[in-house]
Amino acid sequence: RSSRVRQPKMSENGLMSRAKVLTIDTMNPTVKKVEYAVRGPIVQRAVELERELSEGMKKPFVEVIRANIGDAHAMGQQPITFFRQVLALCSYPELLNDSTFPEDAKSRAHRILQSCGGNSMGSYSASQGIDSVRQDVARYIERRDGGVSCDPDDIYLTTGASDGIVTMLKLLMCGEGAARTGVMISIPQYPLYSAALAELGAVQINYYLNEENCWSLDITELQRALDEARLHCNPRALCIINPGNPTGQVQSRECIEDVIRFAAKERLFLMADEVYQDNVYADGCQFHSFKKVLFEMGPEYSNTVELASFHSTSKCYMGECGFRGGYMEIINMDDDVKAQLTKLVSVRLCPPVPGQALMDLVVNPPQPGEPSYDNFIKERTATLSVLAEKAKLTEQVLNTVQGISCNPVQGAMYSFPRITIPKKAIEEALQPDMFYCMKMLEETGICLVPGSGFGQKEGTYHFRMTILPPTDKLQILLNKVKEFHQKFTQQYS
Amino acid sequence: RSSRVRQPKMSENGLMSRAKVLTIDTMNPTVKKVEYAVRGPIVQRAVELERELSEGMKKPFVEVIRANIGDAHAMGQQPITFFRQVLALCSYPELLNDSTFPEDAKSRAHRILQSCGGNSMGSYSASQGIDSVRQDVARYIERRDGGVSCDPDDIYLTTGASDGIVTMLKLLMCGEGAARTGVMISIPQYPLYSAALAELGAVQINYYLNEENCWSLDITELQRALDEARLHCNPRALCIINPGNPTGQVQSRECIEDVIRFAAKERLFLMADEVYQDNVYADGCQFHSFKKVLFEMGPEYSNTVELASFHSTSKCYMGECGFRGGYMEIINMDDDVKAQLTKLVSVRLCPPVPGQALMDLVVNPPQPGEPSYDNFIKERTATLSVLAEKAKLTEQVLNTVQGISCNPVQGAMYSFPRITIPKKAIEEALQPDMFYCMKMLEETGICLVPGSGFGQKEGTYHFRMTILPPTDKLQILLNKVKEFHQKFTQQYS
Repeated sequence: RSSRVRQPKMSENGLMSRAKVLTIDTMNPTVKKVEYAVRGPIVQRAVELERELSEGMKKPFVEVIRANIGDAHAMGQQPITFFRQVLALCSYPELLNDSTFPEDAKSRAHRILQSCGGNSMGSYSASQGIDSVRQDVARYIERRDGGVSCDPDDIYLTTGASDGIVTMLKLLMCGEGAARTGVMISIPQYPLYSAALAELGAVQINYYLNEENCWSLDITELQRALDEARLHCNPRALCIINPGNPTGQVQSRECIEDVIRFAAKERLFLMADEVYQDNVYADGCQFHSFKKVLFEMGPEYSNTVELASFHSTSKCYMGECGFRGGYMEIINMDDDVKAQLTKLVSVRLCPPVPGQALMDLVVNPPQPGEPSYDNFIKERTATLSVLAEKAKLTEQVLNTVQGISCNPVQGAMYSFPRITIPKKAIEEALQPDMFYCMKMLEETGICLVPGSGFGQKEGTYHFRMTILPPTDKLQILLNKVKEFHQKFTQQYS
Repeated sequence: RSSRVRQPKMSENGLMSRAKVLTIDTMNPTVKKVEYAVRGPIVQRAVELERELSEGMKKPFVEVIRANIGDAHAMGQQPITFFRQVLALCSYPELLNDSTFPEDAKSRAHRILQSCGGNSMGSYSASQGIDSVRQDVARYIERRDGGVSCDPDDIYLTTGASDGIVTMLKLLMCGEGAARTGVMISIPQYPLYSAALAELGAVQINYYLNEENCWSLDITELQRALDEARLHCNPRALCIINPGNPTGQVQSRECIEDVIRFAAKERLFLMADEVYQDNVYADGCQFHSFKKVLFEMGPEYSNTVELASFHSTSKCYMGECGFRGGYMEIINMDDDVKAQLTKLVSVRLCPPVPGQALMDLVVNPPQPGEPSYDNFIKERTATLSVLAEKAKLTEQVLNTVQGISCNPVQGAMYSFPRITIPKKAIEEALQPDMFYCMKMLEETGICLVPGSGFGQKEGTYHFRMTILPPTDKLQILLNKVKEFHQKFTQQYS
């Protein structure tokens, strides 16, 4: 019964004062271990600085520029008109009588509403997601993967990709001590993974991406990490983020085949985080889905390797983070486990229906010949080519700075440059990259995330910076980073 | 390392066949313990029956009537026009130039969009929820509670109430064996609670509501349940659902005071599920929030008792389940724990922004003098008075049936009548109430949830039935229930 204090005590004003039921010492210990740098202390300080600026306090900058999170609309990216027209129609179906809306938007809205109970987005959907949306997702995957078949029953709509990832990790938890579930994640990683594993009490198994070779994934490193982990836990799953977050690499087809062979040989459940599947910028790079490669490797693999892949409405060209839409596709999952998964998701009733509707539009956008097609293509192309430009710009400018070295941003929305921090600063600071980023924020208003929030090889330092600010602002930001780095280096040399 | 089988074996077709990584034996054991009857086997069968009907199969009924879940729009309830106008404006801000939208809807949409990054609902919000929405929630609570003050910092927006409830329970988990966290829940209960406790590995402590006294809550029963539980776990929280789900009772102010005194004396964290706060129908009944009563009991209580209360966009007169909007208010939480809570919710980034916008409209609806006010009041009043009628009708008709006895539906959206099941049926069935409900579904197309899904005193049987079908359909449904019960009783007597 440990730390429960049951005696009330008198406080100064004579009132009874009781120790709290829930204190830092008596709360869930696994929650305490959770860390999530993307919204950590740097971002909290950025919020304070914004408030101070708005209150007229003087700072060495006029605005905070947030390059900490992949939040495209917040950085000025415009939503796809067609998507928002359909969402407005679904929200307020009276608009179906409004002649200013294009017919294809109306027919899409009509189809979505017909799949909703009482023709309202206010009804719960099936817990796995609206049937017709799951059908559309399946057809999208088939098109994307060159005809590899996809069963709508393998699709689960989710509340953003995060929700699906946490749900899958939850299913995999089992065992205690040396039999405890271990999950392999890349370092650097997106900290949702480490946070979820901490909360679930799993063992985090780090495999390091090869920074010297453009953040590539080496099978020998996977094997090293796995062999070491087997001494103290039960490794059951391997998580891959492709295109990479925070590292921006795009995996080659060969590498994906190697990973699948490795997972098959070592009996690991594969989790493929593919939310940046449309964000590929570099010449010669192409997105290959794990599903497609798996099926093209033949039945020895396609009939056996268990795979969950994740997608979202939040990234790519749409950037609709706030709607919390997403899906996962589950391949080769044991039927009994799948029944348990379906039961588990039913407790939370259903993913948000507007997010499901948006996911439907993403997988079933305007088609050639439809009235909204040309504008849709124009908007999508414009957004993606601006992102490609900014990816290039970021890499180029950062690499002009002595003491910063940046791999090509082949895909996704981030650069993860390596920074040289002078010895004096390393000795002075507890966390040198946190110290560096905090100082940058205070002096320039630029909000980045220290590399330690994603993991990095010991003795190396990085930051993650999104490429999302508008081009002119990104140019200013990069110049400020350059100046700051030079000044910082001088100051601590 | 237990049940891992590492040797691939040859299958009939000569291909390698491997045992799955994830099987029912190697999956998360706590997930297997989760049950959620509201979407359980009866509902799965109802979905099948609907498909069979649509394929032209002959059944003793022409349609399935779903009275299993509080899904108002699916049962034909219309959304509030003003809410949907604002959501359409927020989704597609071009409509702000459309003169057919009322000015108050436009100004509300404008205010919400101004609080969104890049003026887009597609941006992530702060993890705790949009600032201005939290401010509006705080002002709503102050109005509702007769001026008791509310700090927006104590408000967390959530993905439906379920999300908030699970998050709070998660924080409370601590200890092993006899020190394991125990949580008191009413029986009958809403099965989200038992499901979440099973998944989190907490001890479920049942206290029984008094069916003979209109499902009232007796402090002596709370004390009995607590004292017994203290022998084998560490009871830390007490959950109350008011108005009651599935039982439809509305707690008196005196009862709430007693519960608060009990929680203070026994050092329990109070969780008040108040999602039906506008659903009060019976004469002489009134909703009292735990927050208000707590603060009116004076500083001995208001400064000490830890309370989380939950609200949602899904119930009351709006019934907007699909948007997954909600909030929780946290009173007297330890500051360090609150910081941990804020960190924990940040991992999932933010609740869906359309749901946050909707929550804002619920707490800040049209005001007298605004163009949409009259219509808003008309729609809200109409919905609530129809619900009150249906609550009365349900109770009256069910009580005309010999072998069914139904407490007044004072509030919420459900009746939970007690049914007499003949001895022969009890002997024949593994779960007599499941058997009864499944038979009713097969013979009449009516989809109810067996009482066992919510918990009931041993040897008693119930079902939960929503009062949501349109009045004419509800009348038919009630008559069918009556006929079925009479036939069933004859058949097994």
